[in-house]
Amino acid sequence: MKKTILLLLLPLLGSAQNPAYKQASNYIQQHKEMMLEEFIQFLEIPNIATDKINIQRNAEWLMAAMKKRGIGDVMLMYPTTKGAPPAVYGEVRTPGATETVIFYAHYDGQPVDTTKWALGLHPFKPVLVPGIYQTDGKPLNIREALAQETSRLYARGASDDKGGVMSILNAYTALKESGIAPSVNIKFFFEGEEEAGSPHLQEILESYANKLESNMWVICDGPLHQSGRKQVVFGVRGDTHIEVTVFASKRPLHSGHYGNWAPNPGMQLAKLLSSMKDDKGKVLIKDFYSDVTPLTAAEKEALKKIPNVDEALKSELGFRYPENPDLSLSDAVNLPSLNINGIQSANVGKLSSNVIPTKAIASIDLRLVAGNDWQKQQQKVINHIKAQGFFVTDKEPTDEERKQYAKIAMVELSSGYNAQKTSLDHPFAKRITKAVATTSSTPIVLTPTLGGSLPLFIFEKYLNTKPVTVPIANHDNNQHAENENIKLKNFWNGIETFMSIMTMQ
Amino acid sequence: MKKTILLLLLPLLGSAQNPAYKQASNYIQQHKEMMLEEFIQFLEIPNIATDKINIQRNAEWLMAAMKKRGIGDVMLMYPTTKGAPPAVYGEVRTPGATETVIFYAHYDGQPVDTTKWALGLHPFKPVLVPGIYQTDGKPLNIREALAQETSRLYARGASDDKGGVMSILNAYTALKESGIAPSVNIKFFFEGEEEAGSPHLQEILESYANKLESNMWVICDGPLHQSGRKQVVFGVRGDTHIEVTVFASKRPLHSGHYGNWAPNPGMQLAKLLSSMKDDKGKVLIKDFYSDVTPLTAAEKEALKKIPNVDEALKSELGFRYPENPDLSLSDAVNLPSLNINGIQSANVGKLSSNVIPTKAIASIDLRLVAGNDWQKQQQKVINHIKAQGFFVTDKEPTDEERKQYAKIAMVELSSGYNAQKTSLDHPFAKRITKAVATTSSTPIVLTPTLGGSLPLFIFEKYLNTKPVTVPIANHDNNQHAENENIKLKNFWNGIETFMSIMTMQ
Repeated sequence: MKKTILLLLLPLLGSAQNPAYKQASNYIQQHKEMMLEEFIQFLEIPNIATDKINIQRNAEWLMAAMKKRGIGDVMLMYPTTKGAPPAVYGEVRTPGATETVIFYAHYDGQPVDTTKWALGLHPFKPVLVPGIYQTDGKPLNIREALAQETSRLYARGASDDKGGVMSILNAYTALKESGIAPSVNIKFFFEGEEEAGSPHLQEILESYANKLESNMWVICDGPLHQSGRKQVVFGVRGDTHIEVTVFASKRPLHSGHYGNWAPNPGMQLAKLLSSMKDDKGKVLIKDFYSDVTPLTAAEKEALKKIPNVDEALKSELGFRYPENPDLSLSDAVNLPSLNINGIQSANVGKLSSNVIPTKAIASIDLRLVAGNDWQKQQQKVINHIKAQGFFVTDKEPTDEERKQYAKIAMVELSSGYNAQKTSLDHPFAKRITKAVATTSSTPIVLTPTLGGSLPLFIFEKYLNTKPVTVPIANHDNNQHAENENIKLKNFWNGIETFMSIMTMQ
Repeated sequence: MKKTILLLLLPLLGSAQNPAYKQASNYIQQHKEMMLEEFIQFLEIPNIATDKINIQRNAEWLMAAMKKRGIGDVMLMYPTTKGAPPAVYGEVRTPGATETVIFYAHYDGQPVDTTKWALGLHPFKPVLVPGIYQTDGKPLNIREALAQETSRLYARGASDDKGGVMSILNAYTALKESGIAPSVNIKFFFEGEEEAGSPHLQEILESYANKLESNMWVICDGPLHQSGRKQVVFGVRGDTHIEVTVFASKRPLHSGHYGNWAPNPGMQLAKLLSSMKDDKGKVLIKDFYSDVTPLTAAEKEALKKIPNVDEALKSELGFRYPENPDLSLSDAVNLPSLNINGIQSANVGKLSSNVIPTKAIASIDLRLVAGNDWQKQQQKVINHIKAQGFFVTDKEPTDEERKQYAKIAMVELSSGYNAQKTSLDHPFAKRITKAVATTSSTPIVLTPTLGGSLPLFIFEKYLNTKPVTVPIANHDNNQHAENENIKLKNFWNGIETFMSIMTMQ
């Protein structure tokens, strides 16, 4: 009875026509409560890549969830480096199938600053609400949430990327429980340190290269196109980071007794940062754009077809102009970028005090496109900092260095990876695109490059295989920030997307 | 027996010659343990001006400490504004005296960020150590601390300014217990919200103007001259603050999907801040220096006599050049300043994540000299922000404003006060200077203007009386920041300084 009510209240999924497939969709409709309960349980386990104990708990929880589904050969794939998070692997052989698709998602999440989450929310205490979270609103229980089209689930990883993990696993469950055989062999690979920059993924891929043979990787990460349309993405930007710390006095100084005599690190950092971009958002660092590979004709054509959402986004996000008023979003993500993730020098607001701080720190994110090399890109920034008159060091300056140099910057380099691209004409990718299209009543978006980054470059390098990305999350999911969430609708649609790929022709 | 040992181990105080005075110095020597215990007890009470409950506890503790000393008319002076911290007042009439000196110090302290204090230190858990605090060192007990010349006491308020309060009270105690009559009537006035900018001091002075009649205020706040010499200070800079928040997107964005398209508030703030000063530390804000009153000939003369400590300070503080390499410290504090107290945009370090933050905040401190008006000085900064193309508002921008303006800055103004000066030739000030000089074997420093700020301007305005400032703390006391401390030696010398003023001729 309960299930019947839910079925009546909720819209039918997708547009798949064949009756067996319809049966699988019905299975999802009838098991939403159970699937949501399980998803929430998963989200309750903290999943920061550096939190070893909880990462292990996530991996074990995931193994159990996969075994329960009858997935074979479930195991933890550890990198050779001790102490790094394992990937969780499993596989399903389809009798007669000659092709294999690996479904990738990651179970770790971005670091959290719990103080920034809205009152009533916590990254690891999932909350269901009727729409965008309102601090004065009432949380819903699972049945109430399922009865509303606009419901969202708030938690770290809801969208990025435990939502991906669970929609892949539930797609398989729905097919299996409905007696529908996949058309390909299926492998599952869930990474545990993607948000830390995947420093050990390469080790895992090398160690388990045989086990990980496939025709194509299907990556579930990132959001749908901002137009709300489903998209298949053929490339991702690369990514690396630099943290720059500018040093002034060795101890914090009274801003009265020393103000306009002692150097101020915040002002030095402000001058350094502002030297990095012009007023139209163009990066002024020497050779920043010089090694970019030009777009192919097919990519240019695909870009033209992407619905332009710039005006809608500007209105939704509340700013008048993009950083460069002449650049559209889909063009912008085809360029390398330099973005300030954070700045800190002493305190502001109630914690602010009358000091000249000792240092000022900027956390800088560099996105890369085809042609860029992540280490070269870092080096260009270092060269720029030097060209601004800074002595650059990789550790806290010594007394001797403080005496010798007028301006000192400590530059800490993170690891990183290059961009990756799969050709829009890749035959296997074309079949996946076609399968996804059957689940959507509106045309799907073919995106040459996602603005975001995934370590797809190394699949190509170490496994000699190509990936495509099939995201499922709503674009306004706050991934990487406070108040991360997923629309339940996207979660259900995501399950159907992966069912279509698992049964593709 | 115990006391004799201490007497032998410790150097004799000051250089006062007369035998009665010597007796008072001996009283201090013999009661150091007791005085230090009491001081530590006082420091254990948290003293942030906004923490009403603890501020009240401080005030009551202080009343009890004054009554115990036999000080008369002890009372809390409340401002007319409800809920604001009271000043603690008391007085001692000297038979035959026709002149009155009010001793001022403040019992509140700067806000604390406990996470920034060194491991093993806490702002309200005082710790005694043999010198500059080392995280691997062992704390001393009181007796051990008293046996070492270089001992320091670490706690919020140790120097700024509970150390001032207790050295004034102990000076009176030492005289009284040694049977030495002061030469003037003594009044005590201990403020409770100096570090919050003294927003209600004026109300207290107006309400209690009769009670607060005097020939001169002696202010104990700030550090000794960096040369280590005692100083009498004839003026202070004024002070006010501005907090500037620059807004970008309404929600934090994924730095990959939106990086180099969505505006970055950190970059906008960096460009705004760097427009405020040139590379030599000169403030570029229009008319910033235009209303400064030129120094008098006597002041210029006094400035020349101040020992130049620039080279020693640069070496101690660990930087090669001051902000303006051509400006000496003592010249710099005679100019208005603009100093960045803090900057924040999202997070850095381990808490940093791949976002484009929603806003970036700078906390800016404006110091003022004679001729500057604090509200005009704030307005000059606002005009400058507008001239950089920002729409300036005093609250979070509305959706309408976000649509209308490309760059938006919220400017929050703090209250403030102007600079104050007492003439170097003021007869009463000259007598105080002479008294302090008797306690020092090296010449004392006469400073026309302290770099720091105190609301001395309003003593003049509401009580028609002049102040001079007589600081006691070591210059490297970290006041206003983490790891605040006082050298015990400075505390004992400070007591003697105030004894000399209470008995001045």
